[in-house]
Amino acid sequence: MANVGVLGAGSWGTALALLLNNNGHQVTVWSIDKAEVEMLTEKREHKSKLPGVKIPEEITFTNDLESAVKEKDFLVLAVPSPFTRNTAKSMSPYVAEGQIIVDVAKGIEESTMMTLSQQIREEIPQADVAVLSGPSHAEEVGRGLPTIVVVGATTRKTAEYLQTMFMNQVFRVYTSPDMLGIELGGSLKNVIALAAGVADGLGYGDNTKAALITRGIAEISRLGTKMGGKIETFNGLTGIGDLIVTCASTHSRNRKAGYLIGQGRTMEEAMDEVQMVVEGVYSAKAAAKLAKKYDVSMPIVDQVNAVLFDGKSAAEAVRELMLREGRAEHAALPWNEKI
Amino acid sequence: MANVGVLGAGSWGTALALLLNNNGHQVTVWSIDKAEVEMLTEKREHKSKLPGVKIPEEITFTNDLESAVKEKDFLVLAVPSPFTRNTAKSMSPYVAEGQIIVDVAKGIEESTMMTLSQQIREEIPQADVAVLSGPSHAEEVGRGLPTIVVVGATTRKTAEYLQTMFMNQVFRVYTSPDMLGIELGGSLKNVIALAAGVADGLGYGDNTKAALITRGIAEISRLGTKMGGKIETFNGLTGIGDLIVTCASTHSRNRKAGYLIGQGRTMEEAMDEVQMVVEGVYSAKAAAKLAKKYDVSMPIVDQVNAVLFDGKSAAEAVRELMLREGRAEHAALPWNEKI
Repeated sequence: MANVGVLGAGSWGTALALLLNNNGHQVTVWSIDKAEVEMLTEKREHKSKLPGVKIPEEITFTNDLESAVKEKDFLVLAVPSPFTRNTAKSMSPYVAEGQIIVDVAKGIEESTMMTLSQQIREEIPQADVAVLSGPSHAEEVGRGLPTIVVVGATTRKTAEYLQTMFMNQVFRVYTSPDMLGIELGGSLKNVIALAAGVADGLGYGDNTKAALITRGIAEISRLGTKMGGKIETFNGLTGIGDLIVTCASTHSRNRKAGYLIGQGRTMEEAMDEVQMVVEGVYSAKAAAKLAKKYDVSMPIVDQVNAVLFDGKSAAEAVRELMLREGRAEHAALPWNEKI
Repeated sequence: MANVGVLGAGSWGTALALLLNNNGHQVTVWSIDKAEVEMLTEKREHKSKLPGVKIPEEITFTNDLESAVKEKDFLVLAVPSPFTRNTAKSMSPYVAEGQIIVDVAKGIEESTMMTLSQQIREEIPQADVAVLSGPSHAEEVGRGLPTIVVVGATTRKTAEYLQTMFMNQVFRVYTSPDMLGIELGGSLKNVIALAAGVADGLGYGDNTKAALITRGIAEISRLGTKMGGKIETFNGLTGIGDLIVTCASTHSRNRKAGYLIGQGRTMEEAMDEVQMVVEGVYSAKAAAKLAKKYDVSMPIVDQVNAVLFDGKSAAEAVRELMLREGRAEHAALPWNEKI
């Protein structure tokens, strides 16, 4: 049995707290929001974020960051990406040398182009930072539906420790040394989910969507490998796997915003209607910046940016993607020129 | 403008005939079925296989194989996989030296373990055999929805010629030298589609399905690369792309048969209810044979075979997949052992 602190009581933090509790660990969940802590302590259900899932009495909720962090065997950082750096900064005084923090959110900081684990490491240099990612709607994990994820860490020891902590008969955990690939795939996939939503909004079918997903991950791989991520990771659970689940979901904000844009709304109108942060809009900008910096061709990302920020029509963007000069699917594969 | 012969008047043959006609080519469609040729010539619509799509008068239908083959600039072979070898044998006397035949069906012959292009080459050694594959429901191509496919050929020249013939503003065509990878991915994917159907039938969610798709293509890649296919191909449009479209479709026979099995039917009961050839059942056998021959671990394929042929319960099969010993996602990625 381990003592675990979960930072953040959103749907994913709550679902993972339940999972760890099921696995026999002692779990304390911290939230910055006093009302949320009181509600969860009393009602034992997160009605707005994980409705219908009972939270057992053994899980403790608190507003006190120090008690949620100190002397815990490991920490799960589950706050939304815009709050990661500040939460890490607040945690830092209580984090022991070598204490494990597994980050479960995704995102790239626009000003620094840093991934979340890089930000955490900058704020808490004494921590052993790991990540957990993969195709995992919180609602389904909360309901105990079979899910497979990947834990990335700097050392095999930390990765395998976390694997043991999280794994059970409905939650399978693979390990990976490629934290950067995991984080890049998880962050950049939202641009492609947005594009898939646009295609749905335009009334296109499964062919178009499958092509966008496949060519989208090819673009992300081209960029991500140049940045140091591994190609296997982009083609694995945290890359294409997570992208598939996001594009299939009717709940995804990215897909929904794209859908509205495909139907003719402007980016601002779509954002207003979705009424939540649409991560893909920021990721689209970040991806375009990175593509330029690393000199990588990303035609889908380019068209998404043109639609979002230059008022290009979605139908015109698709037409341009389809009509680009005919190419080889994988430029690196050689032809037999002797024939 | 080219003269094209399309062999086979099913949904895919008809949709591609329409596409080529739209591109300004002269198209003759052959079917072995007299009634089908008469019906198509008269009604100008394939009511059972491509309902609602008008077929223009310029497309000719015929029962005469010789006139459909002779002096055509290229041929499209679109008969179902079990009829490919025999159709090729009948065509052979009329095929000129170097005449291009692009096969658009998928499958592996159980007795020989040969792909369709290998069978065609054996029956028509004088032909220049190519393949066309990718995420492409015929119904959506018939309706002109944006679709992206890959043409594989022995030479770049043939691949680029076919690219020019097929490509238009709603049908983008990439080229590839990896015919074997294209054909293996297209054939073996049906086993995974069947598994995805089983997961749906068991009431599992998007997490489970995305994991099955991702780990499924990883298995197919392990086998396919050992057989000589390229990893890029399995991660491309004709591998994961085609698998995504098949698993998303409610029309796929493989997914539907899997669904029924997930709900508790036996393989025989499921086959009876679907009332059509369920390719995945044969592919499952072929994949298991190949996995043994090439000494590759394929846990999903093993469990599908156990459920199909050994009466194992679907729920038990999933449980075993989830509870296998914890592993690294990609065994080849190295850990930094210095830390």
